Order: sequence, then structure tokens, then C-alpha cells
Amino acid sequence: MSSTPAFRRLPRAVREQQMLDAAVRAFSRRGFHAASMDEIAEDAGISKPMVYAYLGTKEELFVACLHREGTRMVEAIAAAAAPDLPADERLWRGLRAFFGFVGAHRDGWIVLYRQARGEQPFAGELATMRSRLVEVVAGMLDDALRAQGREVRETDLEVIAYALVGATESLGDWLADHPEADPAKTATRMMNIAWLGADQLLRGETWRPTGE
Amino acid sequence: MSSTPAFRRLPRAVREQQMLDAAVRAFSRRGFHAASMDEIAEDAGISKPMVYAYLGTKEELFVACLHREGTRMVEAIAAAAAPDLPADERLWRGLRAFFGFVGAHRDGWIVLYRQARGEQPFAGELATMRSRLVEVVAGMLDDALRAQGREVRETDLEVIAYALVGATESLGDWLADHPEADPAKTATRMMNIAWLGADQLLRGETWRPTGE
Repeated sequence: MSSTPAFRRLPRAVREQQMLDAAVRAFSRRGFHAASMDEIAEDAGISKPMVYAYLGTKEELFVACLHREGTRMVEAIAAAAAPDLPADERLWRGLRAFFGFVGAHRDGWIVLYRQARGEQPFAGELATMRSRLVEVVAGMLDDALRAQGREVRETDLEVIAYALVGATESLGDWLADHPEADPAKTATRMMNIAWLGADQLLRGETWRPTGE
Repeated sequence: MSSTPAFRRLPRAVREQQMLDAAVRAFSRRGFHAASMDEIAEDAGISKPMVYAYLGTKEELFVACLHREGTRMVEAIAAAAAPDLPADERLWRGLRAFFGFVGAHRDGWIVLYRQARGEQPFAGELATMRSRLVEVVAGMLDDALRAQGREVRETDLEVIAYALVGATESLGDWLADHPEADPAKTATRMMNIAWLGADQLLRGETWRPTGE
């Protein structure tokens, strides 16, 4: 890139990121319906017509926020959970990347987890992203089982994966409300909860109700 | 109550429940914003002015739905998890009551879990209900520990409780999308995931990353 004097107009891509930053902040704090294009434009230091020209309607802006934050989150997790490591290491690295994302992008997490859910048509996009995470986790558990020469039914893997993803999201949301908590320590806590349980399950141990 | 001929006008309480049933169905399928008072009145077989007269605005009707479904769910769980049983039995009975609620009140669950989240001011009510569940689960784990003469820090209990509640909600949502799945069997599956993990944690076992 050529060197540019400080007063030169910012490139479009940089401006767009500033608008998205402002939009994520506004949607996180006030929700999709209450957040206004006026406050987003003002926070980004850009005129409202330019926000519309660059990123479209409020709906399109919200979708752009979901895409950016969701992609950041999923890519961070996928990059961390390298497939050549043992299953527990992969799971822990994935968890560390996830909690790292929540710690560093608290507003992004809140838009994804609290504000987009229940909002048609955004809820569908979120459900798709979540299904992808569930598949990744189920695949990781399947690899761990196959490495031990074992196999469990696909439904059982899916159920365990749903539970792990739900537990992790819930703790991610806890972290978003506890900025003083350490993301890496939270990952180790979640790993203790997830793995000590999954490890026994994968070894075929089961809990049974008594007296029923 | 005096015996009433079949053609007599229904008592107010019965009509209100019919309106709430229709409202829960509409909010579950279409969300708060898209659902209309017209379709709710039509589904309940009641005139729209009467819906307004009995249950107020659409916002008030939505809150009434949240209260009814949330109270049903929390009371079912609290009644099942009798305090004089061992911790694993209490947890399992609580889980069975929870998945039983989701199986029997699928629309109610969807309104609570998918439609109310992110909708101000309803999100606050949901967060309060969720905190109550987290407290109940943390208290149950604390009882189990004290019965073994052990104690862990309140934050650790809270973190485990958040993870368990999140895992259970996630699997409840899976059940809502799988009407062919058995609620009691889903409870046992969740118990296996939750308890085999929690049991080791409560015995003081921990997972540690290697090579870090």
C-alpha cells in the first residue's frame, strides 16, 4: 500500500469496519429494534446517508454484524482445534479460543447470543452456525472414540455435542458478564466440566437411576 | 362450582387460559413482532376487543405467556427435586421434570427460550428466572459436597451450575425439535453427561492441559 498522509480520506474497507464496530456496540447495548441508525452513524463519525450507502438498511447492517462476529468466532475455534492433536487437547484449545473470543469481543458475543436469537430472520442464520459447531464437536468426539476402536450411535454423539455446546455458550455468557474473569482460566474450568464427564462417557461408563 | 349447562358462557378464568394457549402458539411459531392480536383472537375463538379487555396489550399478553410457562417449568422442577434425596437423584428428577415440561409444552419452551431472549424488556425477566435455576443447581451441588464434608468456592459452584443449566437448555431445545425423542430418556442422557462429570469434579479430580 502507498504511504498516505494522515488527513487523506480513509479507505472504504476501514470505514466499513468502523461502521460495523459502532453497529455491534449499539446492537449489543440496545438490541436490534431500539438501536438507531442515527446513533450508529454518530458513534462511527460518519454521516447516516453514508452508512446506508455502504452497508444498506438496519436489517442488512445487523446481518453484516452477525456475519463478521460469527465468522471471527468460528474461525478462531477452527484454527485452534488442530486435527492432529489428541481429542482432549483439541477440545481445550477450541474452548480457549472460544472464551478468548468472548473476552476480546464482548459486544460481538452479546449480539450473537442475546440479541439475534428470536429475531426473524436472523435466528435462522444463528441456528445454522450453531449446528456447524455441534457437528464439529460431534466429529471431535467421534475421532476420539475411533482412536480407541469404539463407536457410538450418531444420535448419542449429537446429544453429547448439543450439551457441550450449550454448556460452553452458557459459560461464555457468564464470562461476558464477568469482565474480571480470565478467559483462559474459564476455558480450563469448562474443560474440567466437559472432559471429565465426556471421558467417562466415552469409556462406556453410565449413570443409572436407582429404585426406578 | 355449580353445574353449568354446556352452552353457558365460559368462566373468565377458562377463557383467559384459552387466550393464553392461542397466544403461546402464535408467539412460538411467529415470534413477538410478527404474531398479531387478530390471529390470536381468531385461534382462541374470541373477539379481539375481548382479548385486549382481558389480557391487555400485545406486550402484556406476551409477559402473561412468559409468566405462565416459566412458572409451570420452574414449579415442575422444584416439585420433582425433593431435598431429602441424594444429590444425583435430585438432579435426575429435576432433569426429568424439565424435559417432561419441554416434551409436553413445546410451544411454551420455544416462547421462553427462543422468542423472549433479546427482546427488551422481556429478556430481563428471563435472566431472573435463569439465575434462580442456576442458584437451585449450585445449592444442590453445595449440599452434595457438604454431605461429603467438602466445600468449594462459591464462584466454582456458580460456574459448574451455569454450565449444567446451559447444557440442559441446549438439550431441551434439541428435544423441542425432535418430538419423536422420549423426554425421560433425554433426561437420563443429560444425567449421564452432567453427573459423570460433576461426580468426578466434586471428588476433587481435575483435568490439566499437557505441554503448556
